[in-house]
Amino acid sequence: MTTDQWSSLEAIEGCLRHGVPGIAFWRHKIAEVGLAETARMVRGSGLTVSSLCRGGMFPAATKPERETRIDDNKRAIDEAAELGTDVLVLVCGPAPDKDIDGARKMVEDGIAAVKEHADVRGVKLGIEPLHPMFAGDRSVIVSLAQANGMAERLGVGVVIDVYHVWWDPDVYAQIERARGRILGFHVNDWIVPLPDMLKGRGMMGDGVIEIRRLREAVDRAGYTGPIEVEIFNQKLYDMPGDDLMKLMVERFEATS
Amino acid sequence: MTTDQWSSLEAIEGCLRHGVPGIAFWRHKIAEVGLAETARMVRGSGLTVSSLCRGGMFPAATKPERETRIDDNKRAIDEAAELGTDVLVLVCGPAPDKDIDGARKMVEDGIAAVKEHADVRGVKLGIEPLHPMFAGDRSVIVSLAQANGMAERLGVGVVIDVYHVWWDPDVYAQIERARGRILGFHVNDWIVPLPDMLKGRGMMGDGVIEIRRLREAVDRAGYTGPIEVEIFNQKLYDMPGDDLMKLMVERFEATS
Repeated sequence: MTTDQWSSLEAIEGCLRHGVPGIAFWRHKIAEVGLAETARMVRGSGLTVSSLCRGGMFPAATKPERETRIDDNKRAIDEAAELGTDVLVLVCGPAPDKDIDGARKMVEDGIAAVKEHADVRGVKLGIEPLHPMFAGDRSVIVSLAQANGMAERLGVGVVIDVYHVWWDPDVYAQIERARGRILGFHVNDWIVPLPDMLKGRGMMGDGVIEIRRLREAVDRAGYTGPIEVEIFNQKLYDMPGDDLMKLMVERFEATS
Repeated sequence: MTTDQWSSLEAIEGCLRHGVPGIAFWRHKIAEVGLAETARMVRGSGLTVSSLCRGGMFPAATKPERETRIDDNKRAIDEAAELGTDVLVLVCGPAPDKDIDGARKMVEDGIAAVKEHADVRGVKLGIEPLHPMFAGDRSVIVSLAQANGMAERLGVGVVIDVYHVWWDPDVYAQIERARGRILGFHVNDWIVPLPDMLKGRGMMGDGVIEIRRLREAVDRAGYTGPIEVEIFNQKLYDMPGDDLMKLMVERFEATS
């Protein structure tokens, strides 16, 4: 999604040209090209597939709707397996009404309902807490403490994105608590003032997040997996993809 | 600030016309009219002055700058006393650099440095945690847990605004923890999708916040003070002030 100007296939080729050893896919981008074709291309490329994004979106007003969401998560698990990644990132979803705690229960029930399917397919589920500003429209899971608690109860993992957690006074303690459960680490930056909630994330170095401090905390907590750059930014989407990749690699080396 | 289309004096008159028994002032609005004149008007009006907003903004890059902020907070305390309110709301400020934990220490040191002056003037200091989306530009104090901890250490109070805390899985436990320290309670709403981070707050009833549930929690924690409506919303500012007041009173009764 950092190179939204590219298709998934172009992104694979871009990673190869710029020496980026792995890639994370988003399902709607895969759908444009087709799962089989993307899987074939990436398996032949030598790239690691770090994760598939996203499952989740569990809360819904009625039981049939919630079952539809669960079925979709099972399909996402199958897609992850076919792409050759063992991590499915869960963006857990907003409440269908004002009952935020009720929606949190739906999330927990939803993950519990797909856990066995994930185990069978060899795919780990990573709860990604989103920034609290997305509590109304994207995720009722809003802090690493909350994600850790749910992950511990369910026997799943967490995904840590600096954009979503950097503000949290408890983040370093919670990263340590997540030891053994960290399935992904995402870098980007928080520009001040924020240009846009959704498409105003910053390139690493353009904002105020202590990226390296967070990365070192994740290291100390035993995480040795890939670091994903995940930036939604309209200005970066307006750049030629290769210029963006070049900038991204430079900034990643300098900050992450 | 809910009626930014009005001066402080017009807001006093508006409260009287619409049966609103109290008012909270912002310092920059008072500065337009003058402190003495505002104080004279409000003291003669019969309205309660629920609070003055805002002190705070403690972190700065250099010691002289931090001392300037402390002096300004002492002036704010004096202004609160002259207006006849015993509550100064603290919006604590952003970090001057990337060191968010260092800035949190500056906030704590700053409040400690003005506490005695507040005691002498009979003004209570209320730390208002802001929504984490303001961590980069307005407040490094971002949760009620964090505000409670600091308030307990310093012997000051907290101010709870539903907009800033509604997302927090820990909010009801933290409201109970704040028992005896709650100096203010602000209502408004969170519209989905949020029209604007700063000037997109909703009128009560237009969003997803469980306002009454939060109000009842504050009641249970022993808070018996005024409830302030605090909405920054450009669309409401574009309404005639009396229409806004009428809507506000209706919605307050229905939701809060």
